[in-house]
Amino acid sequence: MRMYDIIRKKRDGYALDKNEIDFFIKGYTDGSIPDYQASALMMAIYFNGMTDEETANLTIAMADSGDKIDLSEIDGVTVDKHSTGGVGDKTTLIVAPVVASLGCKVAKMSGRGLGHTGGTVDKLESVNGFRVELTPDEFISQVKSTGICVVGQSGNLAPADKKLYALRDVTATVNSIPLIASSIMSKKLAAGSECIVLDVKTGSGAFMKSPEEATELAEKMVDIGKKAGRKTAALITDMDIPLGTHIGNTLEVQEAVSVLRGETDNDLKEVCIALAANIVSLAKNIPFEKAEKAVNTAISDGSAFSKFRELVMAQGGDVSLIDDTSKLPKAEIAYNIISDKNGYISHMNAEIIGSASVVLGAGREKKDDTIDYTAGIILNKKTGDYVSEGGIIATLYTNDKARLSPAGTMLLSALDFSDIPPRKSPLIYKTIN
Amino acid sequence: MRMYDIIRKKRDGYALDKNEIDFFIKGYTDGSIPDYQASALMMAIYFNGMTDEETANLTIAMADSGDKIDLSEIDGVTVDKHSTGGVGDKTTLIVAPVVASLGCKVAKMSGRGLGHTGGTVDKLESVNGFRVELTPDEFISQVKSTGICVVGQSGNLAPADKKLYALRDVTATVNSIPLIASSIMSKKLAAGSECIVLDVKTGSGAFMKSPEEATELAEKMVDIGKKAGRKTAALITDMDIPLGTHIGNTLEVQEAVSVLRGETDNDLKEVCIALAANIVSLAKNIPFEKAEKAVNTAISDGSAFSKFRELVMAQGGDVSLIDDTSKLPKAEIAYNIISDKNGYISHMNAEIIGSASVVLGAGREKKDDTIDYTAGIILNKKTGDYVSEGGIIATLYTNDKARLSPAGTMLLSALDFSDIPPRKSPLIYKTIN
Repeated sequence: MRMYDIIRKKRDGYALDKNEIDFFIKGYTDGSIPDYQASALMMAIYFNGMTDEETANLTIAMADSGDKIDLSEIDGVTVDKHSTGGVGDKTTLIVAPVVASLGCKVAKMSGRGLGHTGGTVDKLESVNGFRVELTPDEFISQVKSTGICVVGQSGNLAPADKKLYALRDVTATVNSIPLIASSIMSKKLAAGSECIVLDVKTGSGAFMKSPEEATELAEKMVDIGKKAGRKTAALITDMDIPLGTHIGNTLEVQEAVSVLRGETDNDLKEVCIALAANIVSLAKNIPFEKAEKAVNTAISDGSAFSKFRELVMAQGGDVSLIDDTSKLPKAEIAYNIISDKNGYISHMNAEIIGSASVVLGAGREKKDDTIDYTAGIILNKKTGDYVSEGGIIATLYTNDKARLSPAGTMLLSALDFSDIPPRKSPLIYKTIN
Repeated sequence: MRMYDIIRKKRDGYALDKNEIDFFIKGYTDGSIPDYQASALMMAIYFNGMTDEETANLTIAMADSGDKIDLSEIDGVTVDKHSTGGVGDKTTLIVAPVVASLGCKVAKMSGRGLGHTGGTVDKLESVNGFRVELTPDEFISQVKSTGICVVGQSGNLAPADKKLYALRDVTATVNSIPLIASSIMSKKLAAGSECIVLDVKTGSGAFMKSPEEATELAEKMVDIGKKAGRKTAALITDMDIPLGTHIGNTLEVQEAVSVLRGETDNDLKEVCIALAANIVSLAKNIPFEKAEKAVNTAISDGSAFSKFRELVMAQGGDVSLIDDTSKLPKAEIAYNIISDKNGYISHMNAEIIGSASVVLGAGREKKDDTIDYTAGIILNKKTGDYVSEGGIIATLYTNDKARLSPAGTMLLSALDFSDIPPRKSPLIYKTIN
């Protein structure tokens, strides 16, 4: 078999078979197939796409290219969720303890933030003492004892995907739905859980700008999961505006705790309940409505929050900060953005707002940047809200005064106003299962 | 400027501007742009093509990437021809002395054979003593004194094309008309002649299988030549069957001499006259018919052959072998392929016949293979001819008995027979100027 023939076949619009895909992934991972042939193939895939079967075979080959987490020691159904990333997306902090409190086993690896989107691992680390780097034994044993563990990605998971993604990133071949789907799902398959629920974001703050694209990606991923023998479902949810009101690490922990305690009722809670109910429905094989009811109860009766406390405690976090989030460290500077006009907010650009929070210190522009956990934004008004002249639109938090002005300018540039209330777009577009 | 943005722009179907193309070619030649980005761009060009302006800019950038032959010392109009390659194509051996005898200045660099096609340099070297490696000074001074010089490619001509072609060859991106056109023309531009006539082959033995594809390529190349300030024309000629009857190095010299002496009147002669007349017409700015008449006279009055003798003598070849081609070395084995049926040859696959000659020792499969100059094939029958059972179809020449059987089998597999004479396809499809 020759890589040349594989490139030519895809270039000419034919589907690659399993042997060809395995040959490519094995050879690319071990270095016998050079980058320049891999990038030519990626560009041919960009133009000619991949069938569902090819996409599943590529995903499985990448999942098999390195370590795979063995969760077989864990009794009960292991579950995982994945979000394609957004601004103010603290759903893992809420969904994971909710479903764990209902008996699902959450053995979760999460990522760090990069660019305008945050990462669960950073948010958890913002709770003093919380350890995200556990040994594999600690990881499994914590899931066995508490039903929940959330760590950073460790081990050599899907190295083929890692290498290929880095190549795609510099050859303008990221933006291909089958390649995005296989990249995400290869890591999910290697991470070992039986049930996978995907939160595919759409809108200005998401990678997929339209619900149609998001649906195509979601369908591909659900198909891959099923072909690989996992129970899989996906939600298409709105990321045209930030999720919830809090953006930034300690600020998001604060909002998550508030939802877990049943003290906040907003878009964030709605998405979390939908995600958690889908997970529980899949894992327990029960109707969605029944799962949704259980999820609501887990929040109202305190068991979800109690599971979150267990998680923080088990991983060394200072649980007193959770019990009273006003004790979480605060930024030195809190600065209100005041409206100079009257009107409805007709649109907010979530990506720009996410970038403004990065400017304040809440995120990373490059991989090695350090984070100011206390920096961020609390939105007082969101799309559809009426703002009066002199009213507070948002509050910026930072420890570096010099960052206020550029972040404030960015935030205001992300907002459009109008005299009439805008049409509300749905929060959850669709469920695919 | 970033290579990433250039790839993305082409991927998205936009035309690259001159600065972007220059940036790419400069960076790729000096190594600052890696192969994996160049191959992604090549694949994007494969899918999205290039405008005429882009193609010309790419060609000029590649021509400017290394040495350029300076022919300014030569009085008179310098001319060049290029064939896209075929089987039995010995046109340079005929056309170059014909046009030189009419006052055109031929300062020509030619290639060696590879795969099923031969190369002019090998054919000339098959004449004992002929030197194809001259110094630049010897090259120019021979053109000044005799009006003709044919050497192997020397110097660092269009290194960007060399590097890019090698990359395209292993990434399935050769087969793109703008890329083929710019590759050929970059070397022609760097080689310095004022007039360029291109022989674009079409049919089973050519890279371009259909006249439509060949026309597209020819039009692109003529456009590039004109945009670069050269007088340029192209002929689309048939390579569905081998050109002439002789295939193999000394055998082709023999046939070329016979045409130059006016002793042979066949398809080879017809193509050569058309090419030579186009060159003369362009160089002297005279009507084609007048040029054609001059070309015919140059053959019939012996001046073309006399110029070929001058060429051989000037480059150290044994001219007695040209004066009497029966003195050229011969293969030890001559083996007749006999027909076992009656009928018309309805089709011959020129590529397979070319490959059979390589098997006999006449060509190279890999760059470093050595050649048996005396090996080859003389076709006794060609498409349209009637063959009787027991009649000779062709004679195979080799010094290695073991090669006869596989070559004979290949040759026969290249032929189709029918009871009725096939429709004759035109020899010269079109002239583009």
